[in-house]
Amino acid sequence: MHFKTVAIVGRHQDTGLDAPLLELAATLHALGCEVLIEADTARNTGVGQLPVASYDDIGKQADLAVIMGGDGTMLGAARRLAHSGVPLIGINHGRLGFITDIPLSSAHDALSSVIQGNYESEERTLLEGRVTRAGETLFSGQALNDVVLNRAGRGGMIEVRVELDGTFMYSQRADGLIVATPTGSTAYSLSASGPIVHPRLNAILLVPVAPQTLSNRPIVLPDTGTLSLTITALGRVESGASVHFDMQTWSDCQPGDRIDVRRAAHRVRFLHPEGYSFFSTLRRKLYWNHMPQPTDEAE
Amino acid sequence: MHFKTVAIVGRHQDTGLDAPLLELAATLHALGCEVLIEADTARNTGVGQLPVASYDDIGKQADLAVIMGGDGTMLGAARRLAHSGVPLIGINHGRLGFITDIPLSSAHDALSSVIQGNYESEERTLLEGRVTRAGETLFSGQALNDVVLNRAGRGGMIEVRVELDGTFMYSQRADGLIVATPTGSTAYSLSASGPIVHPRLNAILLVPVAPQTLSNRPIVLPDTGTLSLTITALGRVESGASVHFDMQTWSDCQPGDRIDVRRAAHRVRFLHPEGYSFFSTLRRKLYWNHMPQPTDEAE
Amino acid sequence: MHFKTVAIVGRHQDTGLDAPLLELAATLHALGCEVLIEADTARNTGVGQLPVASYDDIGKQADLAVIMGGDGTMLGAARRLAHSGVPLIGINHGRLGFITDIPLSSAHDALSSVIQGNYESEERTLLEGRVTRAGETLFSGQALNDVVLNRAGRGGMIEVRVELDGTFMYSQRADGLIVATPTGSTAYSLSASGPIVHPRLNAILLVPVAPQTLSNRPIVLPDTGTLSLTITALGRVESGASVHFDMQTWSDCQPGDRIDVRRAAHRVRFLHPEGYSFFSTLRRKLYWNHMPQPTDEAE
Amino acid sequence: MHFKTVAIVGRHQDTGLDAPLLELAATLHALGCEVLIEADTARNTGVGQLPVASYDDIGKQADLAVIMGGDGTMLGAARRLAHSGVPLIGINHGRLGFITDIPLSSAHDALSSVIQGNYESEERTLLEGRVTRAGETLFSGQALNDVVLNRAGRGGMIEVRVELDGTFMYSQRADGLIVATPTGSTAYSLSASGPIVHPRLNAILLVPVAPQTLSNRPIVLPDTGTLSLTITALGRVESGASVHFDMQTWSDCQPGDRIDVRRAAHRVRFLHPEGYSFFSTLRRKLYWNHMPQPTDEAE
Repeated sequence: MHFKTVAIVGRHQDTGLDAPLLELAATLHALGCEVLIEADTARNTGVGQLPVASYDDIGKQADLAVIMGGDGTMLGAARRLAHSGVPLIGINHGRLGFITDIPLSSAHDALSSVIQGNYESEERTLLEGRVTRAGETLFSGQALNDVVLNRAGRGGMIEVRVELDGTFMYSQRADGLIVATPTGSTAYSLSASGPIVHPRLNAILLVPVAPQTLSNRPIVLPDTGTLSLTITALGRVESGASVHFDMQTWSDCQPGDRIDVRRAAHRVRFLHPEGYSFFSTLRRKLYWNHMPQPTDEAE
Repeated sequence: MHFKTVAIVGRHQDTGLDAPLLELAATLHALGCEVLIEADTARNTGVGQLPVASYDDIGKQADLAVIMGGDGTMLGAARRLAHSGVPLIGINHGRLGFITDIPLSSAHDALSSVIQGNYESEERTLLEGRVTRAGETLFSGQALNDVVLNRAGRGGMIEVRVELDGTFMYSQRADGLIVATPTGSTAYSLSASGPIVHPRLNAILLVPVAPQTLSNRPIVLPDTGTLSLTITALGRVESGASVHFDMQTWSDCQPGDRIDVRRAAHRVRFLHPEGYSFFSTLRRKLYWNHMPQPTDEAE
Repeated sequence: MHFKTVAIVGRHQDTGLDAPLLELAATLHALGCEVLIEADTARNTGVGQLPVASYDDIGKQADLAVIMGGDGTMLGAARRLAHSGVPLIGINHGRLGFITDIPLSSAHDALSSVIQGNYESEERTLLEGRVTRAGETLFSGQALNDVVLNRAGRGGMIEVRVELDGTFMYSQRADGLIVATPTGSTAYSLSASGPIVHPRLNAILLVPVAPQTLSNRPIVLPDTGTLSLTITALGRVESGASVHFDMQTWSDCQPGDRIDVRRAAHRVRFLHPEGYSFFSTLRRKLYWNHMPQPTDEAE
Repeated sequence: MHFKTVAIVGRHQDTGLDAPLLELAATLHALGCEVLIEADTARNTGVGQLPVASYDDIGKQADLAVIMGGDGTMLGAARRLAHSGVPLIGINHGRLGFITDIPLSSAHDALSSVIQGNYESEERTLLEGRVTRAGETLFSGQALNDVVLNRAGRGGMIEVRVELDGTFMYSQRADGLIVATPTGSTAYSLSASGPIVHPRLNAILLVPVAPQTLSNRPIVLPDTGTLSLTITALGRVESGASVHFDMQTWSDCQPGDRIDVRRAAHRVRFLHPEGYSFFSTLRRKLYWNHMPQPTDEAE
């Protein structure tokens, strides 16, 4: 058996999650695994009959974490487990996501197969960054999708000076600026016209949101450098700016504040049933097969 | 009865069109209509038991034309009938189109209702234009979707000078330039990042394809003027340019040639069953309800 | 003389505006005009030797208002004078704008010519709208550029249901939604990938900002209807939404609030020296002549 | 001295190139270099007093090639010299390019400095590919910018099936499909809304031109795989398709033909004077400093 101790994490806001979680635990027990349940998940779902574990405990004791929820649940667990090296596998009990790619209905078969060693593994990079003011760190965090700097409200655009390893890249006035991992390229960045970046590419993506200069474009960079975003101006006195590391927010940015972002030392490992294809997920999620299409003109 | 003589037109390339065409004729006969069949449709489908009529005959004799096919069939018939004022109604026996919005399965009910006077009517503008060289007209045509000027092959971009009623607008280097009606805004123009233009707006749309100048943008103009596109340069000696009025092509453009485009004097009238909504068609065709969506980040 | 009483309005935040304002007044006096100065402009620049007038007074007494500042100054004055029908003319003492198209250096000649009746006149539409909650109006305003609904901060997207004259158009999740006049099509809307709309077209433009559904597109509508935007959901509990009528902000939107927008009854009239061209302004402002261009591949 | 034998290559279509070429040779002679002139350049400019060399000779004998012309001249020379490892340096005697970044006016100083060893070096990847039909190779070539598959004329879109290392990625209907290197990301790809890719990133870029499916997006991939593009359909009988490796064209593509593309074994080495910055070139070429900008709304 490849994975002896398995932790389960659920999207604890959901109601009705206890039954599928218990079923999941039964599947894992039947496969001979020891099963832990993450503390918040246990508390919120009322699943109390399993040994409860904090993320720290999971990092130390588990060989695998099974996440049941949506992509957001997966992102949150991934950030907390990245430093420990525990791999994650995602089961979606709603609409399939980009990274929670196993439907609940085939969870039993998929997990049986994975536990017995039939899986594909892929690593995803994280970003780490901090907000500093006059040399003092105000906030720091990690992100699996993106670090986003944006204005609060519409009061004019924010003006940002971007440097790569201390070299001036450009100054930009825009609604916001997205620094994304390849994983994040299919999240918010995609709505802002960013390209899709393959998860195996060692890249960081810079995407402006509604940039004032019409020739601004998304830029794809090697992920070996440190990006520095300095707020040089806020459009109007009353408007502020905020920084978001995935969903964690620092909302009190002022002109002069600097956000440094680079690839984190640790990566996250996702497992998939054999036959997984990144492109198959894209085709399904982006309706490429349905071809929403302009008028067919052939007479 | 609102429509006594009804012509039917089919996408004659399709095989197996005879049965639905005959069913359609039977429906119309049962409603008390006289039914004509368009000549090419008759010849290609073998439906010979109905009085055969040329487009000219249809223009003179018919009160309504029922088109069975795709949007392209509808476009072709509309161009040929525009001058006559005969209204059109579209039945799609494949996937629903933007303008052929009645599915075959409900053709009987929809037609019964329309023939009895329960319908919505909308007018669509056409473009008319001509290609001239040194004052001589080389080609002229009409278009319900768009007039497209583009290069043949990739041999560099074409350079076009655009004027509106003789006033210089801009010069542009690009793969091509689309002049579209509101109807055409959901056709090729949409693939080239043009906006959707409501059919009731008296507008002409100018959309560049892959423009070299990154700040070029689609432009929406009143449809009261004449646009003149003059080819000022072709990227490389061996490459030519061509002009397309919907699917009719003039493929021998040279530097110095001018394409004048304006709204045609006649409009086309489309009928729809009551309750028709342009936006409902958009939602269905562009999958707006399915929301192909980036990662849902809520944990 | 076409314009006997002329009011002058300046961007009162600017320092050093008193000298050019006085020069402007001298030019107008020399042309035989009576000159009024707008009250805030007088107070902030210290230009006290001219008769001071409120916007209400200007609306009643002036035949022309000369605006010295940027496009924003012009927008503000236009909103306040729209109901009165007083035409405006814009002088830019910084970089030329889209609607303040006379450089300071040629202000004397341009004004002399205009005062003597040599000018071109164009009308621009305004939007008017109001925010209602449970039938009660919370806020109302006018906009010459745009009405923008957007989220405050990044906490997820806002979800908006859009109706035109009571007919459902679409529901959209996005950072925001811009409802723009043709004048506003070259403002914020352009940064959000909206098309350029000619000022003479009777159109309203709907442009999503970073929409989650990738097939969402800008839509151009006739300006005869009423658009209703209902906030159906805010991404996360802590985030709010705000509405902006040009720069006037209502920042306390909640789910269920509705924003109704339609063309205002009054239009604004702008005067330009003879020979004015909308396209010439576009070419200059968008650097179309400079052709920022990709690699020229011709060997 | 770092570079003893230096070859010079010029854009031989240009008239008046002989004087700057001779000046360049004089500079190099004064620095103690032996100077060769490329054969076509010699023939077309009439510069006959220097030893003439074919590209093969240059590959064997030269330590450096100095290119005088535009980006296209540089691309052509780079493809021919890539296998030899001879580094290139580009002097632009027109408007500065993306890769010919030394103005003629500072050529003397820049070359002196480079010859003495003060330079920055960067490697650029090339693509190599071939067109096959039923297993037989019809055409093969190399490209420093891009391999472009597109339709000839407008007769409907081409339909392409794309695979990466034999795994199905997607099928796409579009005007064309661009496979670009990072170098090519600022060429044609940029006009088709592709992102900018940093030259040091080991990536290949896939960009559709006017794709029919509105959720298609540019994709950035690791450059370690082989892309296969199979033409599955051409829109209409009369239209063909063509493939372009930079400017070399194969114009006789038929349904069933396959284009395989991968990174070439060799890279090209470009030299720049010290202080070179990729971002500085972007800022200059894309007018980022000029900020072509929408209406400034601040009053």
